[in-house]
Amino acid sequence: RRATKTLDEEDSVVFVYDRRKGSEPERRIDLGGVFNYQTFRDRIRQEFNISSNTHFVITTTNRKEVNDDEYEDLVDSGDTLYILNHISQNLPAPAKERVEFLPHYDTLVKSGIYEYYASAGQNPLPFALAELIDNSLTATSDNLGPRSIELRLFLDESGDKSMICVIDNGKGMTSRQLNNWAIYRLSKFIRKEKKPKQNEDDEDGRPNTPTNESVPRSLTSDISYFGVGGKQAIFFIGQGTRMITKPKDSRDVHELTISKEEFERREKNREAIYSGFISNRPVGDARHLGSDEQNVKNLISEEVGKESFTHVIITGINPDHIHYLKHDFNGWCRQLAHIYHYYIHGPRGNEASGLGNKRPMSPFKNIDITVGIYDRGKTPRLISLRDIMDDMQTKYIRSAVDSFEFRAVVEGTGIVEGILRYHPFLYDKETFPIDSIPGAESDMDDGEYYKEDRPARGNRPIFECYWSGRLIPYTYVENFDWCSSPKKRGPIPTECYNRISGVLWTNDKFEVSTNKLTFIDLEVRLRDIKNTIFQKIVLGQAQRVKIDRQFHEWLRECHENYDKQVKFCGFEGTISRPEL
Amino acid sequence: RRATKTLDEEDSVVFVYDRRKGSEPERRIDLGGVFNYQTFRDRIRQEFNISSNTHFVITTTNRKEVNDDEYEDLVDSGDTLYILNHISQNLPAPAKERVEFLPHYDTLVKSGIYEYYASAGQNPLPFALAELIDNSLTATSDNLGPRSIELRLFLDESGDKSMICVIDNGKGMTSRQLNNWAIYRLSKFIRKEKKPKQNEDDEDGRPNTPTNESVPRSLTSDISYFGVGGKQAIFFIGQGTRMITKPKDSRDVHELTISKEEFERREKNREAIYSGFISNRPVGDARHLGSDEQNVKNLISEEVGKESFTHVIITGINPDHIHYLKHDFNGWCRQLAHIYHYYIHGPRGNEASGLGNKRPMSPFKNIDITVGIYDRGKTPRLISLRDIMDDMQTKYIRSAVDSFEFRAVVEGTGIVEGILRYHPFLYDKETFPIDSIPGAESDMDDGEYYKEDRPARGNRPIFECYWSGRLIPYTYVENFDWCSSPKKRGPIPTECYNRISGVLWTNDKFEVSTNKLTFIDLEVRLRDIKNTIFQKIVLGQAQRVKIDRQFHEWLRECHENYDKQVKFCGFEGTISRPEL
Ligand SMILES: Nc1ncnc2c1ncn2[C@@H]1O[C@H](COP(=O)(O)OP(=O)(O)OP(=O)(O)O)[C@@H](O)[C@H]1O
Ligand SMILES: Nc1ncnc2c1ncn2[C@@H]1O[C@H](COP(=O)(O)OP(=O)(O)OP(=O)(O)O)[C@@H](O)[C@H]1O
Ligand SMILES: [Mg+2]
Ligand SMILES: [Mg+2]
Repeated sequence: RRATKTLDEEDSVVFVYDRRKGSEPERRIDLGGVFNYQTFRDRIRQEFNISSNTHFVITTTNRKEVNDDEYEDLVDSGDTLYILNHISQNLPAPAKERVEFLPHYDTLVKSGIYEYYASAGQNPLPFALAELIDNSLTATSDNLGPRSIELRLFLDESGDKSMICVIDNGKGMTSRQLNNWAIYRLSKFIRKEKKPKQNEDDEDGRPNTPTNESVPRSLTSDISYFGVGGKQAIFFIGQGTRMITKPKDSRDVHELTISKEEFERREKNREAIYSGFISNRPVGDARHLGSDEQNVKNLISEEVGKESFTHVIITGINPDHIHYLKHDFNGWCRQLAHIYHYYIHGPRGNEASGLGNKRPMSPFKNIDITVGIYDRGKTPRLISLRDIMDDMQTKYIRSAVDSFEFRAVVEGTGIVEGILRYHPFLYDKETFPIDSIPGAESDMDDGEYYKEDRPARGNRPIFECYWSGRLIPYTYVENFDWCSSPKKRGPIPTECYNRISGVLWTNDKFEVSTNKLTFIDLEVRLRDIKNTIFQKIVLGQAQRVKIDRQFHEWLRECHENYDKQVKFCGFEGTISRPEL
Repeated sequence: RRATKTLDEEDSVVFVYDRRKGSEPERRIDLGGVFNYQTFRDRIRQEFNISSNTHFVITTTNRKEVNDDEYEDLVDSGDTLYILNHISQNLPAPAKERVEFLPHYDTLVKSGIYEYYASAGQNPLPFALAELIDNSLTATSDNLGPRSIELRLFLDESGDKSMICVIDNGKGMTSRQLNNWAIYRLSKFIRKEKKPKQNEDDEDGRPNTPTNESVPRSLTSDISYFGVGGKQAIFFIGQGTRMITKPKDSRDVHELTISKEEFERREKNREAIYSGFISNRPVGDARHLGSDEQNVKNLISEEVGKESFTHVIITGINPDHIHYLKHDFNGWCRQLAHIYHYYIHGPRGNEASGLGNKRPMSPFKNIDITVGIYDRGKTPRLISLRDIMDDMQTKYIRSAVDSFEFRAVVEGTGIVEGILRYHPFLYDKETFPIDSIPGAESDMDDGEYYKEDRPARGNRPIFECYWSGRLIPYTYVENFDWCSSPKKRGPIPTECYNRISGVLWTNDKFEVSTNKLTFIDLEVRLRDIKNTIFQKIVLGQAQRVKIDRQFHEWLRECHENYDKQVKFCGFEGTISRPEL
């Protein structure tokens, strides 16, 4: 049951306590026909049976006296007032005052602005775009055929006609689900309780599905969690959105627009802030759009023939973002390829396929994420994230000569899979890959080393961390006791400990912050040795032998088999060999 | 003007479109007296003049047919419905559907839970407590006499009677301000616009006060910014709050309670979620409280005689917090002393006073922050934050032999003051202070070094960062070009660059995240060399000479004057000197 009255429809009333003495409850005084202080005072006198020669004052609860001059300023519909003998009289009894404390619309509009913060010089915009891709991954997870997720950017630095669309062929939303989409903080876990009698939402909010422990790398596609991601992302990227969606069983398309501008208008006109309309219209029908919205019209014409879909259109794009998106296209696509690496390439990641740089024909779980940028007057640039070969995970995977897989179970239900990869020293240099993201954290410490001394990983932590298969970009795990170099010098050279990179994949039994930038409890829980068991995994089987012994053995073998150090002694001079 | 009607008062209606053909607007159908499908259908027929032999269906906007069985489930007040020829007919025209998308009350209740995240093993609870101290600092900034801020904790691990009070003698709140307090995201910058005709809020929301550039270390006490801090903190710490406040001019005390429990009750009863009551009552009047609330009663009895105050009472304390607060009392008090170091000790910090460990008599700006813990059956533990001598800033200040002050102006209005401190090598060891916070970031890297090789600062970044005088705990700035060791070995030994610690103080022209844990744009803007000017400051005066030259000169002098390395050669044996 929803509130259907706007503020304008309600009658104008105030609540008045006679607190000259006694503890009577307040009375509701209708302000209909009351336009000034005198009529108001008369009505009060009449209502409370106060004789005309009795002295009294009417005050606000902050003890400002209501009088001729200030009546307009002090009395507003819904206010609580006192009748007193004099202004500074003690209250003989408490008086309750109605208050409303609806969250301000900045809850939505500013939800993203301060939440996507830059860590170590990285632009957080890719992490906002990722929230929308998360939603599309979740929405397409039951697709039988291809799961297509397309980022389509129309960028126009000179005007305000830019727009960013996230287009998926997922299951779409009913109008009620679209309504729920807009409700800030309505997570899948509580959505059911809203309308207990209806189970329309059942397949959508599935908190009770048992975790499928057998999904490798926790690639569940189940990345919706808090009920804030989409809204935060949209209002970080721009100033408004048009959500267009159609579920399979519906004949109609549902459309909802929300914008900062509209919120401001409603506030100015004192209309209900959080009320709006979903427009239900035939598929492909763009009659409601103006002639200047050709890009939206084109998208609407694509609706025809799609069984179900969601099109998120973000408008009012922040000009800084437009600049960045245009000028660092490769950089942010690489970031996205890194975030979704294991969704795009499957649990083993982007291994060399034997096909050269050609990608394998059939994608993992049918997921195709593409990006297209349409810059006015230029040829569009299109890329499939699967074709990106220089994201960090690809570099780690392809420069590794051996790997060590393990698994941790934390308090029974928290599952963490992990891998360590060895990047050997070859001839004259470390092969540990260098971060290609300009200004990223990993680069920062390097200034402390003279180039030739630089240890492979530098001061970087070993592990990057994925949650439900998607990168949580600002959390790193330094190392674990069993894989760090021993305090006393052992048989393995210290440098070798610096030649490993690692990845952790957790299921959703670990908490992440609502902006999905950091883990809350991963490190603390992994370090709680009483409740955490690490085991080496070989061919999917957990090994019994203690993991630290296994690790050191693996590391020693890596060193012995793969590190190749060439030292030239007794240098006599440079010889040119023209015959080569 | 506020909404005063609860949902229960509104009439039950649905909105119906006749979409068999045409594009007529919807009609509002009163459901008064309608209790089943037949009466409903009859009313529709009548309202739309549909003859009794005409076939039609009534459907939801998701095209579920309303019929005898499902009438109750499908039709709810406020819903939009269609009249169609048959269920899968095309819509001849769009149909608008009213939706409400009030933020879920988890916006408040869960606002803090995922926002205070643990970084590098630190418990974030002190940072939540800090939000409440921030508010008290702001509220007391105009006090003429002492500014007293007291954290009073009643901890009872066995029951649910624990409570945390933050008590200040600041300016308090009018009932309208208390109402505004509860509005999520209503920041001081927009508060004014709510009631343009009234200026009651003027002195409170002062976005237009020009920045007082002369406040050293930006210790402005003006730390309220987003309109979320108090609420986030309270619901991170516990499950509800009783806010009790009295402004100077008021005779009465204003009291507002908000709790998760109450939100849940309202949701269950389908009452308006964000409506409540402020209770206005005489000072010291505790008649509304039960006999089991002795601690609150005691606090209420303290109201008498206070000119103005705010008492924040947090209840439903998370048991993990209770444990931590009891068992790591020194640790979190030290954290608070670190966060507010320059508010407690003044712009120069906690320098050795010549009085031994005794604090100077007159505090900076009259600020006194005290913490008291009342553990059932034990003697209370009380401490003034000014008496803490082992917080990190005190250690940095007291182990430094010399300092280098500077200032950066960023894009004209962004002011950053800075200091570098030199911690010399003495005889056989570095004097750079070690972080006393167990598991804090700085400790983590140290494993990589064999004890004797450990460089002074380790891999830690140089600068801790304060915003408006209060620590932003998770942001560090690595270094600047002008104070990092040169790529080519220079005349100063490399180790010396590792013997400096530093602090940055910014004004509020730099952005922090809403949880005040991280800076958003500090590092990026400081590194933007085109718009940032660094200057050495000597006796308050900016120096003209280039800062990097000045810095290297200072560092060289520090090294020459203070580093003392003693090397014992030709060891012959240990000699005991019993005469000493
Ligand atoms: N592309 C989409 N297709 C279908 N449903 C969607 C889509 N995007 C969002 N939704 C629906 O809207 C809801 C709200 O999305 P939103 O991203 O704001 O929060 P969330 O995904 O539930 O949680 P999180 O805060 O973790 O992102 C989702 O739970 C989902 O039901
Ligand atoms: N102890 C107090 N005394 C007086 N007024 C207070 C006190 N605490 C809060 N307030 C009022 O309530 C408002 C809301 O507090 P809250 O901490 O939730 O947000 P904020 O301080 O405005 O912004 P931020 O998100 O930066 O903390 C404050 O701006 C202030 O006007
Ligand atoms: Mg989401
Ligand atoms: Mg605050």
